[in-house]
Amino acid sequence: MEQTRRAPALAESGALRRSETHDHVTAITMRLRVTYHLACSSRVAAVRARDIAFEQTVELPAASVSPDVGERIAGHVESVVSLGRGRSRAVISFDPATVCGDIPQLLNLLFGNISLKSGILIADIEWPPDLLTALGGPRFGIRGVRELAGVHDRPLLCAALKPLGLSPVQLAGVARGFARAGIDIIKDDHSLSDQPSAPFRERVARCQEAVAAANRETGGRALYFPNVTSAPLEMSERAVLARRAGCRGVVVNALPAGLGAVRALAAGDDAGLAIMSHPSLAGAFFHPHHGIAPAVLLGDLFRLVGSDAVIYPNVGGRFTFSESVCDAINARLRRPLGPVAPAFPVPAGGIDAARVPHWIERYGPDTIFLLGSSLYAESDPAAAAQRLVGAVKAHAHG
Amino acid sequence: MEQTRRAPALAESGALRRSETHDHVTAITMRLRVTYHLACSSRVAAVRARDIAFEQTVELPAASVSPDVGERIAGHVESVVSLGRGRSRAVISFDPATVCGDIPQLLNLLFGNISLKSGILIADIEWPPDLLTALGGPRFGIRGVRELAGVHDRPLLCAALKPLGLSPVQLAGVARGFARAGIDIIKDDHSLSDQPSAPFRERVARCQEAVAAANRETGGRALYFPNVTSAPLEMSERAVLARRAGCRGVVVNALPAGLGAVRALAAGDDAGLAIMSHPSLAGAFFHPHHGIAPAVLLGDLFRLVGSDAVIYPNVGGRFTFSESVCDAINARLRRPLGPVAPAFPVPAGGIDAARVPHWIERYGPDTIFLLGSSLYAESDPAAAAQRLVGAVKAHAHG
Repeated sequence: MEQTRRAPALAESGALRRSETHDHVTAITMRLRVTYHLACSSRVAAVRARDIAFEQTVELPAASVSPDVGERIAGHVESVVSLGRGRSRAVISFDPATVCGDIPQLLNLLFGNISLKSGILIADIEWPPDLLTALGGPRFGIRGVRELAGVHDRPLLCAALKPLGLSPVQLAGVARGFARAGIDIIKDDHSLSDQPSAPFRERVARCQEAVAAANRETGGRALYFPNVTSAPLEMSERAVLARRAGCRGVVVNALPAGLGAVRALAAGDDAGLAIMSHPSLAGAFFHPHHGIAPAVLLGDLFRLVGSDAVIYPNVGGRFTFSESVCDAINARLRRPLGPVAPAFPVPAGGIDAARVPHWIERYGPDTIFLLGSSLYAESDPAAAAQRLVGAVKAHAHG
Repeated sequence: MEQTRRAPALAESGALRRSETHDHVTAITMRLRVTYHLACSSRVAAVRARDIAFEQTVELPAASVSPDVGERIAGHVESVVSLGRGRSRAVISFDPATVCGDIPQLLNLLFGNISLKSGILIADIEWPPDLLTALGGPRFGIRGVRELAGVHDRPLLCAALKPLGLSPVQLAGVARGFARAGIDIIKDDHSLSDQPSAPFRERVARCQEAVAAANRETGGRALYFPNVTSAPLEMSERAVLARRAGCRGVVVNALPAGLGAVRALAAGDDAGLAIMSHPSLAGAFFHPHHGIAPAVLLGDLFRLVGSDAVIYPNVGGRFTFSESVCDAINARLRRPLGPVAPAFPVPAGGIDAARVPHWIERYGPDTIFLLGSSLYAESDPAAAAQRLVGAVKAHAHG
């Protein structure tokens, strides 16, 4: 009785640590628990796990650290088990106070120095509630983006404005065509920055106006999400410009921009824009035996920093994700996660009108399908988009 | 004669492109030339290189792009040669206007989408002068850091304050000991953020004061570089706090912070601090057949965004770089690069008093040796540091 009364108070203070006087299971759930897959036998893995626990915190061997600091600050190896075939799974828990609610420090704690070693894959993370609250997550989430788009009962369709090299007037023409075709979200290609061919300010003004004009014609609520990725100050300025132009969301290349900058954009009161994050650079982390699993990076970390929707390369497109990886990303983005709102998965590529029923069955309605370059292989991309919109509406309502 | 007069004017406008009327060699040096190593035969590599050239720019297959946009915007495959054993080298050049002088867009152009493929390694980059000018590079560089430290004729020695878990008073005690021992730069361990055990503001005040007090005793000019890594706004605020406390430089975990944020810190007038960049997370890019070569990421990109000194794991330490990788990083950081100042390589680990002559011979005087965890294995780290200082001074002046 004493114990059950003490635990919540300690949890609120963030001070709960493993201790012989506490129930073990209760205590460790309050820590940040990271599951690493190690490319070694479980015998070697026990030593490697302890090295990771110290390397990522005190950055000293255990022998060079006082027992007090070792116990308070270094990670705790919770378990090591064999996965067979020379692979092992180690669970290491960290005091969430080490993170300081700070995204760059979170990345550093999870994979900073050990990125420079080999055979270490982050396969799973369990998040303590206090840390989830500190990190925040999406401002809009699935429900909020549905409100913006006025679509509540079916998957959304997104199409990309491209290619880089077109003028603002040309891109606005493409945007108008997609909006009239019934596309829900029209996004800048993630390589459209502030190039002379289509400077940010003019591009956003013209494309937003084109989409608004199409909406007036059709009575629709198509959204235009410009790409605001840039250095932090410029990104913030572009977000404000986009909001003033009437946009309700933006595209961010999350890793090139920095996940801390994405978090600032999501949390900032100056813009209040939905964020669709693009996985540019993310593949650096996706080696099978070293890095961060796609579901953890795109499904947990991208969501926690505030992405309302996360683009990933769909199976069957021109990249390399398997079906199970796509399923895992979808599940992570949508799963209950304390106070953190669910985010939309945005599988990109591999969608055509014939396969729409397949993908809706497989991925479910809480999905934004991003129509990739296949649209542009058609002589009339807007007409092709319209056929897809028809297929989605027919299947979702059928 | 006509041609030699035209080239500089076109170069200044940034508009020079390959054209049949221009000398080919002159023209292509004005583009951003990226050397990719591809894990395939040269026959397949020609197709893959063309895919990369389009994927990274217009993000459409060549057949879906107008000839005008293809020629102006897509990368140009300059050459494809076999490297033997199923590997090939492709040189692709890009119009630097595509970068917009924007660091996140530069990363996106170089490796954004293709990170999600496999077998693509960026092995070299040739930078057009205009882009170098736009990116800027270090504010202090090797010469400026030498001025700050008052050391002109020998390598510098750096030691890390650790571990996380000590109080500001304890860390200040360690800093005082290193400063009195003659260490030139005393840096925060890169995991010291704003944890409750040593909050940023108090840690910086106490450590800077401890180093200043030691300098008053010894007549020395030891520097204290706190770790300011955080989200963009917080990082900028911490840099200002550090400068006000009297610090002349800082540590940044460059990739967790975002390279654009590092650039903003280097270029900003609010702080004017030297930047020592830590390679946290960088290992994600260092796969032998996929990613960005260490010399390009740490030697070129870290330098171009404004690092005055770049830490990397020295051969012989607890990480995995080879001698040739270390040599290549050193060479990249110091090489002439248009208006961009050279930066200090900071090899970390593997240094002890007995091997000081070896490392000075091998790496030369324009090096900062970072004394790693080996110091803390000694019963008296400050005394161990003093022996190393003595060895460096004896060898450098001997």
